Amino acid sequence: MKPWTAHGKKIVARTPIFTLTAEEMRAPRGGRRQTFYFLHAPDWINVVPVDERGRAIMIRQHRYGSRRFELEIPGGAMNPGERHPLRAAQRELREETGYVARRWIKLGDVNPNPAFQRNRLHLYLALGCRKAGAQQLDYAEEIDVKTIPVARLPGLVTRGVITHALVIAALYWLLARPELLRAPRKRRAR
Amino acid sequence: MKPWTAHGKKIVARTPIFTLTAEEMRAPRGGRRQTFYFLHAPDWINVVPVDERGRAIMIRQHRYGSRRFELEIPGGAMNPGERHPLRAAQRELREETGYVARRWIKLGDVNPNPAFQRNRLHLYLALGCRKAGAQQLDYAEEIDVKTIPVARLPGLVTRGVITHALVIAALYWLLARPELLRAPRKRRAR
Repeated sequence: MKPWTAHGKKIVARTPIFTLTAEEMRAPRGGRRQTFYFLHAPDWINVVPVDERGRAIMIRQHRYGSRRFELEIPGGAMNPGERHPLRAAQRELREETGYVARRWIKLGDVNPNPAFQRNRLHLYLALGCRKAGAQQLDYAEEIDVKTIPVARLPGLVTRGVITHALVIAALYWLLARPELLRAPRKRRAR
Repeated sequence: MKPWTAHGKKIVARTPIFTLTAEEMRAPRGGRRQTFYFLHAPDWINVVPVDERGRAIMIRQHRYGSRRFELEIPGGAMNPGERHPLRAAQRELREETGYVARRWIKLGDVNPNPAFQRNRLHLYLALGCRKAGAQQLDYAEEIDVKTIPVARLPGLVTRGVITHALVIAALYWLLARPELLRAPRKRRAR
């Protein structure tokens, strides 16, 4: 199996959250040409935050794509200058919920949509979460924080309450590797 | 919590797989304005196909967004004129793998990305799959079919072999509702 090769690229549109490009691709056999379109965005991060009592720190916000309020986990795009996705994950958790975590575990990184997106989505588990202050939201954000026992999450997904596919992908790890939630607690430095 | 309201929309770009629009949105309080960008695409479908021996019918294809070969489940976009996502799911399974299923179960429908996409992703479980003929691919497609025991899928996700977030979202149901795989077999009509 040989992929098509790229022969020229142009920017179709720039937006604050992604850039759309058109690339001329040529087939490996026969030389047929076709234009492929791609979204270029910074890498994204998602956090599954869990407190000492086994409750997930969830957020509820209006999403303008789906035009409804979505029950989600915290997440967002890496900022320019942010070198490591862990820093972005810690920042998004703090900004969107006001919580901080005692322990961070990288779950993995996935492709939000490998058909036409170039970026990755980095997934983290944040354990021992506790409220450290108020949310830090910008003027366009309005976010409610809800704590939900982790054991209730699968039902919320399969009953169609949690519908954000990228959130569900992160929650996959809690079912596939439940031992992560029982990770030994590190004593906090004093 | 009140969402922003839309005041005017324009098409920024049309591609064969989605249309990009810009919409002027106004804040519920203060009247501040901001341009939001949206991708409009047909609804998408994904199928988790499983044969009588408990093996998932997976596909491997090059993805031009991630620029790598991805191990996935069959899926794609609904065609114009396709009224029901089940028909699209049956068509994609047949075209991409050559397989047909004895029994179809709707798992749910999710938002591929509710931040800026307007479409839904419909998820199906296809049971009792068997090969019915050759694949039906268009000239731009080259797809390998691989059968993989369902019990091996969680390890392939958490070890980073399966990385397509929308595929992982569909596979969530196999872990959350494993009884679906043990659904009683219907006798085929004779």
